[in-house]
Amino acid sequence: MAIKSFHPPQRILMGPGPSDVSSRVLEAMSRPTIGHLDPMFVAMMDEMKELLKYAFQTKNELTMPVSAPGSAGMETCFVNLVEPGDKVIVCQNGVFGGRMKENVERCGGVAVMVQDEWGRAIDPQKLEDALKANPDTKVVAFVHAETSTGAQSDAKTLVGVAHQYSCLTIVDTVTSLGGSPVKVDEWDIDATYSGSQKCLSCTPGLSPVSFSARAQDKIKSRKTKVQSWFMDLNLVMGYWGAATKRAYHHTAPINALYGLHESLVMLQEEGLENSWARHQKNHLALRAGMEAMGLQFVVPVAERLPQLNAITVPDGVDDAAVRAALLNDYQLEIGAGLGVMAGKVWRFGLMGYACTPRNVLVCLGALDDVLGRLNAPIRRGVAVAAAQKVLAG
Amino acid sequence: MAIKSFHPPQRILMGPGPSDVSSRVLEAMSRPTIGHLDPMFVAMMDEMKELLKYAFQTKNELTMPVSAPGSAGMETCFVNLVEPGDKVIVCQNGVFGGRMKENVERCGGVAVMVQDEWGRAIDPQKLEDALKANPDTKVVAFVHAETSTGAQSDAKTLVGVAHQYSCLTIVDTVTSLGGSPVKVDEWDIDATYSGSQKCLSCTPGLSPVSFSARAQDKIKSRKTKVQSWFMDLNLVMGYWGAATKRAYHHTAPINALYGLHESLVMLQEEGLENSWARHQKNHLALRAGMEAMGLQFVVPVAERLPQLNAITVPDGVDDAAVRAALLNDYQLEIGAGLGVMAGKVWRFGLMGYACTPRNVLVCLGALDDVLGRLNAPIRRGVAVAAAQKVLAG
Repeated sequence: MAIKSFHPPQRILMGPGPSDVSSRVLEAMSRPTIGHLDPMFVAMMDEMKELLKYAFQTKNELTMPVSAPGSAGMETCFVNLVEPGDKVIVCQNGVFGGRMKENVERCGGVAVMVQDEWGRAIDPQKLEDALKANPDTKVVAFVHAETSTGAQSDAKTLVGVAHQYSCLTIVDTVTSLGGSPVKVDEWDIDATYSGSQKCLSCTPGLSPVSFSARAQDKIKSRKTKVQSWFMDLNLVMGYWGAATKRAYHHTAPINALYGLHESLVMLQEEGLENSWARHQKNHLALRAGMEAMGLQFVVPVAERLPQLNAITVPDGVDDAAVRAALLNDYQLEIGAGLGVMAGKVWRFGLMGYACTPRNVLVCLGALDDVLGRLNAPIRRGVAVAAAQKVLAG
Repeated sequence: MAIKSFHPPQRILMGPGPSDVSSRVLEAMSRPTIGHLDPMFVAMMDEMKELLKYAFQTKNELTMPVSAPGSAGMETCFVNLVEPGDKVIVCQNGVFGGRMKENVERCGGVAVMVQDEWGRAIDPQKLEDALKANPDTKVVAFVHAETSTGAQSDAKTLVGVAHQYSCLTIVDTVTSLGGSPVKVDEWDIDATYSGSQKCLSCTPGLSPVSFSARAQDKIKSRKTKVQSWFMDLNLVMGYWGAATKRAYHHTAPINALYGLHESLVMLQEEGLENSWARHQKNHLALRAGMEAMGLQFVVPVAERLPQLNAITVPDGVDDAAVRAALLNDYQLEIGAGLGVMAGKVWRFGLMGYACTPRNVLVCLGALDDVLGRLNAPIRRGVAVAAAQKVLAG
């Protein structure tokens, strides 16, 4: 055995995440490791909480990054808020709603599924009907921005309906946070989790979460212990809490947190609204190029996320061959379809640091070339110009 | 709000972890992020598994890093191997045995505690007595290297006793891996977890784990689903498994894995046996210095870990004042006591990249100064010379 150092290629990351990471963030991660109870680190943690409150638009004190990827952030919400026997309505319109169901059931909860078409927003009327039929429901859970399809749902309305029926709400903002409006306090969300590697453009591995006072009350009044020791917020808050004395729970991922801190400082410098506008503008440019080629979006225009663009693979075109050619010839990563959409759609991310006019043009030019070489039924040589027109506008 | 980039100080990390991280590892973490399904990344994952097999001295196919800190590695072992109603004997001789009990109970298991004195190795006879009294025990769990006290137990003997009673074994090697012998196959360990931030000297946030064929059989034949979706090895193995086709489970912490890969390449370059010998030699030098000052080790000499040195705080000396002075005046972090040992001991780590003659001398010199200034009852001006004598030998 003589394994050498690993030197990754320099890709352009326009899949569903991770997205491109700024050299500022990468450099921050390479700063000297210090202890997780070092006074300097503890001061940085306080800044981190402030920066995350800004990103989530909340005053929730219980706002912090879980020391693991978004899937663990999801599980943190469910294991803390769902007790055995609790009925939970999950609105599903893609892959990640299905993962929520798994979480509910593994907590001993009873999942009531409300199904919507993949690629469409969640229908608030269906949620209301389900709540009427299940008045003993304790929690409503849904995905704000479905990474598997690129559909965004009206979180404010859905949370409002849930609260009319006295339910707590768990909202997945993995793909929306930083790229399109997420307003935890204004929308009155009780628990939400996100990921570091989408529109925040940090490396993967951390999951920002936020919990309302109502959610905290529920956690404090649980009849049973949280089934996960690692994710038990009663314990985690001994480390991340507002207390002046921070107690050891687990060893925090120090350097990853340096990176998230830096990416949040960058978000603060740009301003949330400016970031949302940038995502929207580059999305419109990408859309103009895609449509000029004759490619079709999966999601109706009013329900589309700017940062995750699902495009139908044209008839007769080999999904995987196109992705491989983009990766090998252009160092450009795009995403495959997930679940029932595998082989049928491509997912083009325009997230965070990767959401630039440059990447829009590179992507459209590369796609034009690759699809042309494969004799796909598209209009050649028009996509880049169509995007440029939007970018100049 | 105008929060700036965070610039940590350059500490020397001689606490219980994290330990100092090589600039090679820090630089590796700052390499460009690529996708978690990128063919280049998938190839790196295969190397990672080989490197971890070497570190653990095992051929176990199910050897990989959990995408979260050591506490999550511990929980991964328990949630996969313990089903509701299963009886688990936990041998406790420090803080982390107590955490094992919490894990057993949160899995719905029944924990039978076998207590040993803190600061001593686990007594195999007590384990055997407990197994005789509890013939329906399914799993035996213990900590090989107690980070809270610096005691090491005879893992091979304890595993042998457990197997005589047909029990699976879960062994915590968080602090031992890389710094002192851990021989998973020779000792016949069924499940073990470690941490990236101790003697592997990577940043915190990853937990290498390894599972024997016997453990895998148990996981495959479970009657109930693993209660954690994130930690369910049946699912995780779809991503980390030997299959030619890697499927998405969660988004792996790409750059953190670059760092662990690099730290394991460094371990391979040095050689495991050389690393163990280095830890032992520097420990003997530190010990000579401590004893020359008149300071006392908590753990009897035959049961001491080289990489974690627990020293009794002399009567009348303010534990916290000493640690603060070392940190502020010498940028030197050492660890406080945990649990019942809080305020009564200091923990001096000599782990991985921090385990050097230079750090031994700096630590002893700084301690000599700080304790002297506080009028502690020590012999002044002799510690460094005593250590140098050992280092020269």
